[in-house]
Amino acid sequence: MKKAVIGIDIGGTYTKFGIIDRQGNCLNDSFINTDIYKDFDKFLLQLNKEIENTLSGIQEKIEIKGVGVGAPNGNYYRGTIEYPPNLHWKGIVPVTEKMKNFFKGIPVVLTNDANAAAIGEMIYGGARNMKDFIVITLGTGLGSGIVVNGELVYGHDGFAGELGHINVKLRGRECGCGRKGCLETYVSATGIKRTVFRFLAERIVESELRNISFNDLTAKMITEAAHRGDPIAIDAFEFTGRILGAKLADTVAHTSPEAIFLLGGLANAGELILNPTIRSMEENLLPIYRNKVKVLLSGLSDLNAGVMGASALAWKELEKK
Amino acid sequence: MKKAVIGIDIGGTYTKFGIIDRQGNCLNDSFINTDIYKDFDKFLLQLNKEIENTLSGIQEKIEIKGVGVGAPNGNYYRGTIEYPPNLHWKGIVPVTEKMKNFFKGIPVVLTNDANAAAIGEMIYGGARNMKDFIVITLGTGLGSGIVVNGELVYGHDGFAGELGHINVKLRGRECGCGRKGCLETYVSATGIKRTVFRFLAERIVESELRNISFNDLTAKMITEAAHRGDPIAIDAFEFTGRILGAKLADTVAHTSPEAIFLLGGLANAGELILNPTIRSMEENLLPIYRNKVKVLLSGLSDLNAGVMGASALAWKELEKK
Repeated sequence: MKKAVIGIDIGGTYTKFGIIDRQGNCLNDSFINTDIYKDFDKFLLQLNKEIENTLSGIQEKIEIKGVGVGAPNGNYYRGTIEYPPNLHWKGIVPVTEKMKNFFKGIPVVLTNDANAAAIGEMIYGGARNMKDFIVITLGTGLGSGIVVNGELVYGHDGFAGELGHINVKLRGRECGCGRKGCLETYVSATGIKRTVFRFLAERIVESELRNISFNDLTAKMITEAAHRGDPIAIDAFEFTGRILGAKLADTVAHTSPEAIFLLGGLANAGELILNPTIRSMEENLLPIYRNKVKVLLSGLSDLNAGVMGASALAWKELEKK
Repeated sequence: MKKAVIGIDIGGTYTKFGIIDRQGNCLNDSFINTDIYKDFDKFLLQLNKEIENTLSGIQEKIEIKGVGVGAPNGNYYRGTIEYPPNLHWKGIVPVTEKMKNFFKGIPVVLTNDANAAAIGEMIYGGARNMKDFIVITLGTGLGSGIVVNGELVYGHDGFAGELGHINVKLRGRECGCGRKGCLETYVSATGIKRTVFRFLAERIVESELRNISFNDLTAKMITEAAHRGDPIAIDAFEFTGRILGAKLADTVAHTSPEAIFLLGGLANAGELILNPTIRSMEENLLPIYRNKVKVLLSGLSDLNAGVMGASALAWKELEKK
């Protein structure tokens, strides 16, 4: 009987999941909407129904060994989602405890989405032979998962690795966390939009981005404009990479990783973001670290990195025992 | 037969060592000068002679189980001191390899002085029951040792934990590393001197520190002046703590430690440095970390923290096997 795990990626709009074997093959997958369920129990009931359907669609005989969940503000130690700003469920949601009622006897483990992505990178991606590396997810915000000695860093309280909220500038841009100048207000899909709008305000150069509203603008549009030579878009990538590189230099001084992987919407811009980031990181590194740290695009596909990461978390947990 | 290890703390001026048992009792200790030996082999010959003398001065029968060495720019993986700016020996010195010739069959292990202090804190000090904590040494420079999951973070290349060189200000104060604006140019015994001199230049208020040259001024004098109510000295501690606290908030976002221990010359100022540091750290922390991270003075005595740390490194290594 083939062994597999269920990887569940809870996002603000959709919750995606897949049935994944140890080699990273997806045997079947599906999704449900997240945002129509104000109540976590009803969400879970629907999710469970859809998982049953999806399992029954697999021809070969399989045995589910574990369940891994990636979720915003997920706490590994407690198996909870705590005060998620982009989900309807308020306060502390005891996710693994409630899921265990459905998956009787099967271990359920949860962490935040960026940590799950880091474990995905370690199990299936570009970090398979690395013991010290970092994954940075550049989506709506900036998430991070730090791996030291082959283990994810959860820290004392299970919330380690919030690099999106290290400070770039005192009294800088307003952040959703209530503070100002956090890294993700500059470096993320939203951050680069804010940079574009600042440049559109300050400069008089023509730009195709002058025809698009803030709410309509996406990181993909900025990438495409940059490829067409738009000066505002090109400078916005340069500015974003310069800030990211400088802050990664400080991060290297903490854990001295072998590589830093970029993943998510903004990472899809490839060299547009990679080149200024690497240049700025090298300029800002302490000499002993220079030319040692690789900055790479993730080995996971952006489309299913969340599900793959969650399933990798389940495999990693099973291998601990 | 009592078991003990030799802890060796190599500093720019003196090399101190002690014969230490598992409970942290020092059975005997001594030191030699470091800076009179331009040649590492001659230094080692003298050190070995002095260790023999010191061992023969111990009444009870002991068995030496290991040797731990703390040294500036020490590399744990390679057992080397690499390009130390404050020692006469140039390039890469293969310390453990050469020491093994003297201590036949006894394991010799080396790391940098701040990492050794962190292991000292874990084995004998205030971090005995902690798995995630950080030690910051505030001497001539700022050193750091980061512990995650009960293990010191060495990183990919053995040089992790250089928090003295994270950036406070682009184009800030010149640093000995060749860059500008590094944390240790603001937060260290030297950093606070530089702050005092900037304040003496900018302000017109009376201060007893106006009578002292840069080279004569010490962190201890600034501490004593602050205790006597000197306004420049008091503000210099406030400024120093504010910067340290803000940067510790970013460090917490990396590894989420249970506690941060301060050690070394500037830490001896006690609440003068502790209070503004804690206030600034809490102000700058992401809400999920607030009121969770203790900032404490080290449980090791400043006088022998280096030797204790080096001996703890030896015990820690023996317990790994």
